[in-house]
Formats: sequence, C-alpha cells, structure tokens
Amino acid sequence: MNPMTSTVSPGQERKAPGRPRNAQADEAILDAVLTLLAEGQSTAALSIEAVAARAGVGKATLYRRWPNKEALLIDAVRSMKGPIPELGGTSVRDDLIALVTANRSSRAREFGIVTACLLPDLLRDSELNRMHHTVMEPRRELMREILRRGIADGELRPDLNVELTLLMLGGSSMMQGMFDFRTGVPDKEFPTALVDAVLRGARA
Amino acid sequence: MNPMTSTVSPGQERKAPGRPRNAQADEAILDAVLTLLAEGQSTAALSIEAVAARAGVGKATLYRRWPNKEALLIDAVRSMKGPIPELGGTSVRDDLIALVTANRSSRAREFGIVTACLLPDLLRDSELNRMHHTVMEPRRELMREILRRGIADGELRPDLNVELTLLMLGGSSMMQGMFDFRTGVPDKEFPTALVDAVLRGARA
Repeated sequence: MNPMTSTVSPGQERKAPGRPRNAQADEAILDAVLTLLAEGQSTAALSIEAVAARAGVGKATLYRRWPNKEALLIDAVRSMKGPIPELGGTSVRDDLIALVTANRSSRAREFGIVTACLLPDLLRDSELNRMHHTVMEPRRELMREILRRGIADGELRPDLNVELTLLMLGGSSMMQGMFDFRTGVPDKEFPTALVDAVLRGARA
Repeated sequence: MNPMTSTVSPGQERKAPGRPRNAQADEAILDAVLTLLAEGQSTAALSIEAVAARAGVGKATLYRRWPNKEALLIDAVRSMKGPIPELGGTSVRDDLIALVTANRSSRAREFGIVTACLLPDLLRDSELNRMHHTVMEPRRELMREILRRGIADGELRPDLNVELTLLMLGGSSMMQGMFDFRTGVPDKEFPTALVDAVLRGARA
C-alpha cells in the first residue's frame, strides 16, 4: 500500500526549513478532501484515489503521510478551522469581532457543508467525534472566556446565558457561511453587525 | 420502470377521503429518504431500491407516486419542515416562540443534517434549489412579517436589522438542532430562551 516510502530522499523532506515536509502537498491533499466532501461526496464514498487525483499528487505521497482514510479525515477537519487568532483583550466587543471574523473565510460555505455533512460520521465514529470536539471546543472555550470576563468586569449582564450566547454567535456564523448567497446580510458587515446585535441584549 | 401503474384500483386510491392516496406509505417513504440522508448517504448514492427497502414498501409503490429520484428528493425536502403554524398575532414574542417551536422537532438533528448535506445538490440542481427556496422562504417571510409588525407597532427598534435577526433566530435553531447533545442549552427551554435573548437587543 505504501511502496514509495523508502524512495523519499532526506533532501526532499527538508526543502522548507521549519515547516513539515511536503507542506504544499499536504495542503493540496487536505484541500482536495474538503472540496470533495463539500461537493456532496460522502465520507464512505471518498476514495484515496479520488483525493490524490484531485490534489494532483501520487497515491504514494498520500499514504506516506496518512495511513488510512480516517486519519486523513481527522486532519482535514483540523485544517478546516485554521489557527485560533490572538485577541487584544481590550474589550468584549473587539475580541468577539476578531473571533467571528477569524471563523469566517472565503471557503466558509464549503466548511459549513463539510461540518454538517460529517455529523453522521461524528455520531458513529468516536475517534472522529473526539477530534471534532478537540477542534471545536478551544474556539468555544475562548468565546466563553471572553463572555465570562465581560460578566466579571460588569460589561455584560450578570445573568447572561453564556451557552445560549455561544449558540447565537456560532449558529448565526454557520448559517451565514452556508447560505451567504441568500441571507440578506452582506458578508463584509456580518461579524460587526452580529456582535453588536448580540451585545445589545447582553450588556449590563 | 413503472410496471404497476395500471394495476392500482380507484378503490385503493380513495381509502382515506380527503387525504392523498396511500398517505401512510408516502410518509414511510419520505421518512426513509430523510433517514438515509441523515445517516450520511449522499443523494447520488441514494437508490430507489434502498428507499423502498427501508420504508418496507415495494418499488412499484414508490414509482407509482414519484417518477424519479429528483421528484422524491423534492417531496422529502418539503415534508421535512411540516406545516406552517397558525400564529396568535398578539405579541411579537408569542409569535416568534410559536414559530421557533414549530421549526423544532424530535428529528431536528436529522433535519439539520439533511438540509446541510443537500446544499451541494441545491447549488448544482436549479429545480431542487427552487424547491428548497419554496419551502424555506414562506417561513422566513412569516418571521420577517412578525418583526416588521413589531417595528411598525413600536414594540421593536425602528432601525432593527430584520435580515440579521432572521439569521440569529434561524442559525441558532439550526445549530441547536444539529448539536443539541453538546450546545449546553436544554432543548425544552430553547425556543423561549432564544426569543427572549434576541428580543432583549431588539426592543424599542
């Protein structure tokens, strides 16, 4: 299954110092997984062959990095969200806008579709579920911390329902990402408009 | 493809006066479509055979009602949402709670998954897209009317962003439906808590 492992020269692996080997190929492969899933391919039907073809790499490159489809799916889920942004910590408003903006991207619709379409697999596969949780929870926890800090500082109402507020920020973002072509809210204004609308009801 | 059409007797068709023929079988069939999609089956992989087997009916019953898979998918999307509720019209709050409650159901997670997983098809297939629009838009328009009435009556702020408010109500409901096992908001309290949180920022 992995016939070419021994033919990779150390030189090839170290082309970009400080980055993982074949970072560009890795990115193309994970991108291909997300694109195929967003096109409606089920995870069951997703084949290593199709991913390799779409990414323009050989199957060997793929197998060198991921032993099987499950491992590949887990990394694709992880790559989907991008890095967690640095927050200024000056105001609840600024930090929430930064976080909502970071969770949006030009591929937001595809990511929304993939997240939603992976749900049946998440419910079935405990490792994938754990992984998804590992990707989602740090972002949710960061948002929770911002809101709790706002409550502690007296900026937000002491009886604010933090979990419901997370849901309002996250759910609206997810739907805007998936249906941006018909929500009637311009994408550019979305993060600020959403945070201001939520805060209007959340302030002390 | 449709060998049994001519064997349906008029008597069979009229068993339940005022209801469409074979309403029970129809319901089982549409239910089977939604269950298979929610389990992660792609619409491309969905077969008439699998739907018939899951619904416990013969393929002939299925072909008698739907000429092809596309027609079946369209009816499944339509059936997913249920009827639009009658609204009291006494207050914005009561009407919004009634509408959010009606859009929730014991199968909300499955419905959320199906809606999201159909998106790739919706973007590709203009008839399915039109149909989805036909199913979604009356509910969105009803919510819009409630909000506009609230603005006109002075109950809501005159500068309320109606489309954003729709997104906050709809997106939060969708995410609660899909992730209810981990949102941290009890499902029973959800419609009232959401509407109250949204209205807190929307009132005049």
